[in-house]
Amino acid sequence: MTSLSTIQYQDIRQLAAARTPGHGLVSRFYGDPIVHQADLETIWFHGWLFVGHSCQLKTPGDYLTLQVDSEPVVVIRNDDGRLGAFSNICRHRGTILCNDTSGHAGRLVCPYHQWTYDRGGQLVSCRGMDDDLDTSTLGLHRFAVEETGGLVFVSLAATPPPFDVAAQHIGPAATPQGLERARVAATVDYRLRANWKIVWENNRECFHCNANHPQYILANFDHYNTDDTSPQIQAAIDAATQRSQHKWAASGLEVTHTRTGMATFPAPGPDGWVAVNRTPLVDGYLSETMNGQQVAPLMGDYADPDVGTLRMRTMPNFWNHSSCDHSVSTRLLPDGPHHTRIQVTWLVDESAEADRDYQLEDIMPFWQLTSEQDWAICENVQRGVTSRHYSPGPLSTAKEYNVDAL
Amino acid sequence: MTSLSTIQYQDIRQLAAARTPGHGLVSRFYGDPIVHQADLETIWFHGWLFVGHSCQLKTPGDYLTLQVDSEPVVVIRNDDGRLGAFSNICRHRGTILCNDTSGHAGRLVCPYHQWTYDRGGQLVSCRGMDDDLDTSTLGLHRFAVEETGGLVFVSLAATPPPFDVAAQHIGPAATPQGLERARVAATVDYRLRANWKIVWENNRECFHCNANHPQYILANFDHYNTDDTSPQIQAAIDAATQRSQHKWAASGLEVTHTRTGMATFPAPGPDGWVAVNRTPLVDGYLSETMNGQQVAPLMGDYADPDVGTLRMRTMPNFWNHSSCDHSVSTRLLPDGPHHTRIQVTWLVDESAEADRDYQLEDIMPFWQLTSEQDWAICENVQRGVTSRHYSPGPLSTAKEYNVDAL
Amino acid sequence: MTSLSTIQYQDIRQLAAARTPGHGLVSRFYGDPIVHQADLETIWFHGWLFVGHSCQLKTPGDYLTLQVDSEPVVVIRNDDGRLGAFSNICRHRGTILCNDTSGHAGRLVCPYHQWTYDRGGQLVSCRGMDDDLDTSTLGLHRFAVEETGGLVFVSLAATPPPFDVAAQHIGPAATPQGLERARVAATVDYRLRANWKIVWENNRECFHCNANHPQYILANFDHYNTDDTSPQIQAAIDAATQRSQHKWAASGLEVTHTRTGMATFPAPGPDGWVAVNRTPLVDGYLSETMNGQQVAPLMGDYADPDVGTLRMRTMPNFWNHSSCDHSVSTRLLPDGPHHTRIQVTWLVDESAEADRDYQLEDIMPFWQLTSEQDWAICENVQRGVTSRHYSPGPLSTAKEYNVDAL
Ligand code: FES
Ligand code: FES
Ligand code: FES
Repeated sequence: MTSLSTIQYQDIRQLAAARTPGHGLVSRFYGDPIVHQADLETIWFHGWLFVGHSCQLKTPGDYLTLQVDSEPVVVIRNDDGRLGAFSNICRHRGTILCNDTSGHAGRLVCPYHQWTYDRGGQLVSCRGMDDDLDTSTLGLHRFAVEETGGLVFVSLAATPPPFDVAAQHIGPAATPQGLERARVAATVDYRLRANWKIVWENNRECFHCNANHPQYILANFDHYNTDDTSPQIQAAIDAATQRSQHKWAASGLEVTHTRTGMATFPAPGPDGWVAVNRTPLVDGYLSETMNGQQVAPLMGDYADPDVGTLRMRTMPNFWNHSSCDHSVSTRLLPDGPHHTRIQVTWLVDESAEADRDYQLEDIMPFWQLTSEQDWAICENVQRGVTSRHYSPGPLSTAKEYNVDAL
Repeated sequence: MTSLSTIQYQDIRQLAAARTPGHGLVSRFYGDPIVHQADLETIWFHGWLFVGHSCQLKTPGDYLTLQVDSEPVVVIRNDDGRLGAFSNICRHRGTILCNDTSGHAGRLVCPYHQWTYDRGGQLVSCRGMDDDLDTSTLGLHRFAVEETGGLVFVSLAATPPPFDVAAQHIGPAATPQGLERARVAATVDYRLRANWKIVWENNRECFHCNANHPQYILANFDHYNTDDTSPQIQAAIDAATQRSQHKWAASGLEVTHTRTGMATFPAPGPDGWVAVNRTPLVDGYLSETMNGQQVAPLMGDYADPDVGTLRMRTMPNFWNHSSCDHSVSTRLLPDGPHHTRIQVTWLVDESAEADRDYQLEDIMPFWQLTSEQDWAICENVQRGVTSRHYSPGPLSTAKEYNVDAL
Repeated sequence: MTSLSTIQYQDIRQLAAARTPGHGLVSRFYGDPIVHQADLETIWFHGWLFVGHSCQLKTPGDYLTLQVDSEPVVVIRNDDGRLGAFSNICRHRGTILCNDTSGHAGRLVCPYHQWTYDRGGQLVSCRGMDDDLDTSTLGLHRFAVEETGGLVFVSLAATPPPFDVAAQHIGPAATPQGLERARVAATVDYRLRANWKIVWENNRECFHCNANHPQYILANFDHYNTDDTSPQIQAAIDAATQRSQHKWAASGLEVTHTRTGMATFPAPGPDGWVAVNRTPLVDGYLSETMNGQQVAPLMGDYADPDVGTLRMRTMPNFWNHSSCDHSVSTRLLPDGPHHTRIQVTWLVDESAEADRDYQLEDIMPFWQLTSEQDWAICENVQRGVTSRHYSPGPLSTAKEYNVDAL
């Protein structure tokens, strides 16, 4: 893939500028290879991408791999306990170094001719090469990597944007959830026939929730919006807010989303790629499970199951929904203009043991059903927006403010 | 997909103009994406396309969907008994409205946020949208739709060509066949690895019939051409013609194809996209079935099985072969430059009941075998014409006059 | 496919010229459609391509087909015992003539309208065409074809390069192996997700052998290179060389590869597309089999199993490894920029009968395992070199001299 020309960039900027205010994007944003190239260069190969969880990379040598469109990446725990992120290809002839999605490696040994890199990416052995070879210039291509609150992020940019906004917001909010002391209970992978922007547009409004998410709306208030919140519902929200504020104050938790509707996104900071909030659940719901009951041991610092739900999102590829007893992370990765790879991961406390302390069939359905309902919609939208008779319609200011902002 | 530039059109016109008279088309017509784009703009998004049968859309709310390359279309019976045809995508954010190939709907409700359209395509409900939204401009994009003789056609053009030529020719000829009073007995779907023009070039000559269609040639005369019609065969044709003319006159049917060879195409009118004819079958054949016998109740107005065969074709996507007791419709739709989706539908009289009045294994094999023999050839041709050593050969004036005309 | 423009050629020449000496090729050589087009025009549609074995085309009318990217080719034994090679498409409307990969045909009859070509490619029958048709200009498009030492080659060029270099080198060396008097014991087909150049770069160095080919390195010396050949190993090679030279002199065989390392490629002649050598195997190995034992009757003129291994290669699509008792040919064919079709064929003496004289499980594993180990690596490399962070690394002058030459 070569870079875009100035003319191609101009063309895309004009296209974006021509959007009717308060309306969706035109067809080309959902399938055109040139627009996709621009998405990669300005968003995916620039910003901070969620990789996985610190608890998946506990011991030096633990690694995770991911493929950001054309780019293979490996993230590995270094001997000093810090993370390194590298282009997952050998500096000799370009072979993929780590083929598995996760693993543990003393050193990274290329399967082709056994060039060997240490956990810091330095080339430490290349038997058979000429003696005068300057191996110091042949370390793995390095990417920026950061972790905060048990979440690991990488940036493929030469000069990554500041990470502090994430550290400031995610760190404190996520600490009581104890993601560093969690472990993965289950992972499900999807490959959607939909452009990644359709997945986000779907995620960022709950206008579609009533008809599509029968489970979700029983547990949550945020599908109500300014236009359909009856006094009775507002009273229930206020009661839940006050009850929670009072109770949570004792344990240092905070209600940060007290209005109806979804938290506005982007939320904090000038860059606005991070959003975190904690919200009470509907009375009777202690966890986002099918019946609202707690189904696994409490995570992190929680001493009482009544902690509402913690929600975190980072653009362009991550969201998480945490309950008192389990946490669900969703990771998006583009795979060409027409496909998105999605990984959904369920975490529980590290001490929890399957079958003894929890059942997968108790912790998974709530978000698995809700996610798959969304994936079906997204594929359906993709088929429509590539028609020549598609013209972007108006967005609801009450219910789709986030889609507009995106 | 954007539209073609003036230069690209010029290029294609030059290519077409450069065809050696009496020879086939060059490679680029069978796979080049620019030529395909031109095909779509000048043919598929312009002319009248066969959708299905009136009997599949009997009751208000019955609908059929189809995909014309990139374009999703829905055709629905309106409350006043007329048909409406619409772009099958929501005016809000572009979701496909009807996902099934056929069905019945009180109103068209978008599965995403429940924008609701009446059967006339008007937006009648969009709860949650801003109050000042002008819904009158947000009806479904409307296409022209027509029906005649039990067949339904749609045009995706802003200004469709006249439909009268179809009404004039198909209406009277098809009425005795009773397609309005028929029902679908079976449907088979195919996706061919062949450009749609190869399918037509195959359909429009019977030069290949002797070697490829052992069933077809037993029942029909039209594989004989000016060059291989012996006096004996001509006598048989004349006898069949006279016998039929005499007999059919009583019931108002007409022999319209009395020569050897396939009816010349295009047949009637200045636009020439419609052809209809009725031809006697070979002696001993009452129906296009494996043994020539009638295998289902008589259709339409027929009182006697000896009605020959009624053939109808409309460019670019329809042909039908009707016998006294069943009728077979073939619908083509392009799916990119290298693929064609084909649907073959068998109809019987609406009163006929499977297993009681007919067996599928009696009515299907004649045309299913003949069709699949053609599909195999077409895929074979596609592989050859995209070679750089393909050069269009001469066509037979005796046997391939229709291919030349196409 | 149209031809490349002058500008596109210039662009590719600049890209090739910009290669850092002693380093690999940049990304675009492994996936860019324009580079692939240039590969086709300058290499695949120009040079001599291995088709198959003379013993597969024994009797007049025997044919083999192959697909060189977009180009279907048929090679058939003529009535005078010579071979003819033709574009495998009908001159009428472009249908593929022979659909099977091999067969026997009295004449080549097109399945569509039965135009019939004799074994020399002349159109001899086209019933139904106009009488004044000049059939002499409608013979099959002819390609150059040659055979030497039991191997059949075709060139798709209008003016093929000289073939003598192959005749000079392959002929004499291959004759004692008796490939003309062989027969095919087994064939395995592969479709690799890798550009054809990656397959060659893998083939042309044994730097990767130690770690990847546990079977191969037990039988062969050539994975040792100037840098890792201990005095002890060199002594073993010298002993094997002397022993073999002495013994083989009696039967007219010659040791032609006496050094450590793989034979340099290109080897003979100014054109350098052919390489042939005979090398001793490691002591205790009489055949390239899992345990080194002879497992089938001796081939050709051999009277003693101790004949080492005969290796032949022709660029761009053939290599062969022959032991005393069996011979293994590998044929590459490009299939777009990202895929390579590979056929591996095992041959035994024509008198040998399966199960009686040999077992497939004895003759196949050595090269099947080694080949499939290579295919896995190649697909792995393809994924890496298309990353934007791939930069070609240095090649080992001791171990990768052949990759550099390529
Ligand atoms: S490609 Fe990695 S060691 Fe050669
Ligand atoms: S996309 Fe149809 S209602 Fe929103
Ligand atoms: S295409 Fe071969 S005979 Fe017509």
